[in-house]
Amino acid sequence: MNVGIIGMGRIGKIHLNNCISHFRQIKVSAVMNPSQAGQEFAREMGVSKVSSDPMVVLNDPEIDAVLICSATDSHADYVEEAAYAGKAIFCEKPLDLSLDRVRQTLAIVKECKVPLMMAFNQRFDPSFAEVKQRILSGSVGNLRSLHIISRDPGPPPISYIKKSGGMLMDMTIHDFDMARYQMGCEVTQVYAKGSNVVSTAIAEAGDIDFATVMLTFENGATALIENCREAAYGYDQRLEVFGSKGMIRTENPLKTTNHFSGENGTDTSRNLDFFMDRYAESYRLELKAFFDALQNNEIMPATGDDGLKAMEIAAAAYRSIVGKMPISL
Amino acid sequence: MNVGIIGMGRIGKIHLNNCISHFRQIKVSAVMNPSQAGQEFAREMGVSKVSSDPMVVLNDPEIDAVLICSATDSHADYVEEAAYAGKAIFCEKPLDLSLDRVRQTLAIVKECKVPLMMAFNQRFDPSFAEVKQRILSGSVGNLRSLHIISRDPGPPPISYIKKSGGMLMDMTIHDFDMARYQMGCEVTQVYAKGSNVVSTAIAEAGDIDFATVMLTFENGATALIENCREAAYGYDQRLEVFGSKGMIRTENPLKTTNHFSGENGTDTSRNLDFFMDRYAESYRLELKAFFDALQNNEIMPATGDDGLKAMEIAAAAYRSIVGKMPISL
Amino acid sequence: MNVGIIGMGRIGKIHLNNCISHFRQIKVSAVMNPSQAGQEFAREMGVSKVSSDPMVVLNDPEIDAVLICSATDSHADYVEEAAYAGKAIFCEKPLDLSLDRVRQTLAIVKECKVPLMMAFNQRFDPSFAEVKQRILSGSVGNLRSLHIISRDPGPPPISYIKKSGGMLMDMTIHDFDMARYQMGCEVTQVYAKGSNVVSTAIAEAGDIDFATVMLTFENGATALIENCREAAYGYDQRLEVFGSKGMIRTENPLKTTNHFSGENGTDTSRNLDFFMDRYAESYRLELKAFFDALQNNEIMPATGDDGLKAMEIAAAAYRSIVGKMPISL
Amino acid sequence: MNVGIIGMGRIGKIHLNNCISHFRQIKVSAVMNPSQAGQEFAREMGVSKVSSDPMVVLNDPEIDAVLICSATDSHADYVEEAAYAGKAIFCEKPLDLSLDRVRQTLAIVKECKVPLMMAFNQRFDPSFAEVKQRILSGSVGNLRSLHIISRDPGPPPISYIKKSGGMLMDMTIHDFDMARYQMGCEVTQVYAKGSNVVSTAIAEAGDIDFATVMLTFENGATALIENCREAAYGYDQRLEVFGSKGMIRTENPLKTTNHFSGENGTDTSRNLDFFMDRYAESYRLELKAFFDALQNNEIMPATGDDGLKAMEIAAAAYRSIVGKMPISL
Repeated sequence: MNVGIIGMGRIGKIHLNNCISHFRQIKVSAVMNPSQAGQEFAREMGVSKVSSDPMVVLNDPEIDAVLICSATDSHADYVEEAAYAGKAIFCEKPLDLSLDRVRQTLAIVKECKVPLMMAFNQRFDPSFAEVKQRILSGSVGNLRSLHIISRDPGPPPISYIKKSGGMLMDMTIHDFDMARYQMGCEVTQVYAKGSNVVSTAIAEAGDIDFATVMLTFENGATALIENCREAAYGYDQRLEVFGSKGMIRTENPLKTTNHFSGENGTDTSRNLDFFMDRYAESYRLELKAFFDALQNNEIMPATGDDGLKAMEIAAAAYRSIVGKMPISL
Repeated sequence: MNVGIIGMGRIGKIHLNNCISHFRQIKVSAVMNPSQAGQEFAREMGVSKVSSDPMVVLNDPEIDAVLICSATDSHADYVEEAAYAGKAIFCEKPLDLSLDRVRQTLAIVKECKVPLMMAFNQRFDPSFAEVKQRILSGSVGNLRSLHIISRDPGPPPISYIKKSGGMLMDMTIHDFDMARYQMGCEVTQVYAKGSNVVSTAIAEAGDIDFATVMLTFENGATALIENCREAAYGYDQRLEVFGSKGMIRTENPLKTTNHFSGENGTDTSRNLDFFMDRYAESYRLELKAFFDALQNNEIMPATGDDGLKAMEIAAAAYRSIVGKMPISL
Repeated sequence: MNVGIIGMGRIGKIHLNNCISHFRQIKVSAVMNPSQAGQEFAREMGVSKVSSDPMVVLNDPEIDAVLICSATDSHADYVEEAAYAGKAIFCEKPLDLSLDRVRQTLAIVKECKVPLMMAFNQRFDPSFAEVKQRILSGSVGNLRSLHIISRDPGPPPISYIKKSGGMLMDMTIHDFDMARYQMGCEVTQVYAKGSNVVSTAIAEAGDIDFATVMLTFENGATALIENCREAAYGYDQRLEVFGSKGMIRTENPLKTTNHFSGENGTDTSRNLDFFMDRYAESYRLELKAFFDALQNNEIMPATGDDGLKAMEIAAAAYRSIVGKMPISL
Repeated sequence: MNVGIIGMGRIGKIHLNNCISHFRQIKVSAVMNPSQAGQEFAREMGVSKVSSDPMVVLNDPEIDAVLICSATDSHADYVEEAAYAGKAIFCEKPLDLSLDRVRQTLAIVKECKVPLMMAFNQRFDPSFAEVKQRILSGSVGNLRSLHIISRDPGPPPISYIKKSGGMLMDMTIHDFDMARYQMGCEVTQVYAKGSNVVSTAIAEAGDIDFATVMLTFENGATALIENCREAAYGYDQRLEVFGSKGMIRTENPLKTTNHFSGENGTDTSRNLDFFMDRYAESYRLELKAFFDALQNNEIMPATGDDGLKAMEIAAAAYRSIVGKMPISL
């Protein structure tokens, strides 16, 4: 299979590296990146066609699938063009910050009948994926509740905050998707609260940096989500699912497995500090899932509709914060 | 110090036993219990005055303090009589299921100027108490959130449910108190949801068996509480406090510390199944705190007002469930 | 059942307290202690006959069983007298520091046909006992190895060291018994090394403070034991059993279950510092086992012969250290 | 830097992949492999010079360093030829199964003044490396003991066993090296026992499948090592270092961080089953250490002498098993 990559920034490089190291049946034959640095990286990694023109990728008849890893505000454009060109599409999220544009783009993808996978990489984290398997296997029983705690080591730059669509659309969106994924059904009600506990600069930029959300699902179960843009102890992402037969919890992976016992007690190492370390394996596994689904002609494991649904929950959560009321979906 | 105990049921026996085994400077000189069984127990443990008449305890001039461990609907009466008799009072919670009666009884206690401790034993659990200490020491920093998960191994009998005041007043009340205790300030808003996921009999008795509550505190922090009347894996009570400098989590104690690794992975033993095992030490420590406060003439570490506040939160939570709205306090 | 206790020091008090709090069918009717302090304690706990004369206990025809908790060098004498008096005997270990005297005393016990339990309390620790149960249930499979690490928080006073019979006889003896207990068969070979890493005063007193021992058992399995008189991080006693079907490990219990995550990682509380905290439950359970065995006319769960065997291993270990060779038993 | 690889089997492929994915300043310009399969892999990964002739690698003047990943019995030959050719050498262990040949080869390497790193990859495992750092930082204090448990998920094929040099030379050798590495000094005495608990086929092939070893070090500390060719619960490699100030323990990494609590307790996932999963990161990090040492002209972090020393300990351990005596080094 021939693959083209549009965008050779941080995430594009990860995907290119994973294609080369782990998917030898995949050939990355073309890469587009607007600037020099990314182009050079692609060349060093042995990609033959490297250009600043996206059409070099999109118009190449030999290319079967396109990975869209460019800036967020270009996702929808490239997805539409790739759809018209008949390529299978793997797109970093979000498709767009506007719900209307997302719906329009998804309509085009549907019309063109091309497969589209949204890169909800956390679904492919081995721990989170095992939670899903245990739910499906019945060992958790009927679901009653789900708890997600996601805390970043520190806030992103204000410039990023301003273009992010806001914390619920940028950060909590992962948890909305994870909650839907694990629950296996849709959200019917959202109650959310937001505040600023980390940084006044974020408040001045019009965003919150701390949020708690209570979701109700079609199956009657409840999800409790907490998000914070800062945690003194590093990256913290945990999930707990509770059902009639049991409970399953996901802890944070650590850099080492050491326990040191000294005068003051026993300590283990600090949480990871970078999401790319935490999710290194999930990036590889989401790509594998994409290629497998293509090869087996199966439905994508995270669709454009999944992306839309998570955004709709985020939008409802914003209305709940403003209106100080639960919002029905 | 001479102590009398009113009520020699399950909890009265624990307190009597703890007095004898652990507090040798305390003499339990009189016990009242309506029925034979409890009286016999007290006699076997060496208590000299044992009667079915509460006045034998309350009118004994040698008795300094009274532990009220009788049925819930008699608490307020005995507390008032003990207050009039000038005794220091240790009372199992709740004082009464009616907020009005609680307020009236507390007014009498105040008038009589006797010390009153409400038996919020969980505050004295070594783990929960250490959480409080770390908050006070500043190592958690400014509080941002608190999570409490309390799941019972199985529901109580329907007869108990009917007299319990409802799940929020009977079970969640502990978590409301714990949240106030850890936060060190008052609740300003309550949002709650309740449902029946365990038993239709509980629903038919007019109670819920599953609840999620979101509390907002004066300091701006949020508490997320989940309660369930049943957990397939045993008694589950966990607490997490997150602040600007760190996070502290309380796990469940287990019966053994063994880890067995076999073909299918590694397993540890089942959670405890009985709250009296989980809280054995906290029963001893709350009594110690009562005796210490008396001896040092200090304010009680859990007051009648604490009991009232927790009940007011529970009452607001009920209004929130019915009104499907957050309620301000 | 009527019980007498000889010796009301630290351990005698624990047993008396446990009898009163936990074994209401047991009556402690007589206590002997040479000095005032212990006698007073017994009186305060409601024991009616308290004396400095052991015969008050041993000659009392109403007394069925005697707990011998006096100084080590009096154990053998009291056991013999109790045996002649026809009492069931529970004796703190060791029976004596001399192997010859132990054999002589055991012969008398045998002759008198009285039951004798040696107080190897660690066998009754819930975690260690569960290890044994899992071995017996077959879930560990054929035993291959056993690892025991026992490290004390700090060394005892030199005065204690001098009368202790040496570290292997005083401290490692518990591990020799534990190894035999878990393995369910006898030791055939001992290789040991000893050194001084903690204190020159211990060396000057003619004792070691650090030892490693390799035992071979009849079943072909090996036990590796490490002992140290000091650990900066508190009391440390761990056991691991490895077999053809699995492995089971016992960790140290901690005072709280809290995990604090801060800038430098996650820490849990310090190990316990006192063996009486670590083994509080095992003291209660060994007594229960003694009373149960008496009542059901069963063989004692830790016999005089068990005490002798552990001492023989210790003696061989000393010979191995001196001879720098493995010693066959 | 230009690198050549001799041998493109399992481990050669890992190193090639790591060079491409993680060390972009390194160019693998030539690969030798006797058979087609390995050659094809190298070509697919973009290596231009691929041959079955080692001289194509060894005589290439542009090649600075050679990674020797061929069959064990060819290591010494290739190392000598690479030394004569003036290349820096990274060699999989062991250099040879004969101590004499190892000494001869090391003499040649010394004469040729080329850097040689022996691939003791476990030293570079992040957890084991952190143990070393904590020892060096002084937080463990004076070392008293070290425990290593290494158990393989299952035995290798008998054909492998026959050429392996025996379990102590093939498997325990890693632990001998690890013990030396952590202790930072030399072994003075070895006592070892070996047996067959896994497979009679291994016994018939003249090898043991279970071993326990007690090492004494120059600093007076003791190491206790247990090795088994089979563990029902998967790959198990743990290390514990105990010193005057504290203790540090390395646990096994697991595939997921999930804890499932059900009726029978709480379980975590099975240990890994493949050493290449367990040590994936250490393979990358040992290569980094090699390239860093070359670039900075520093001493290699695992030398030929380290390989020789570990073999000498293994040889002494064999003599100890046969002679049933401790052996001085």
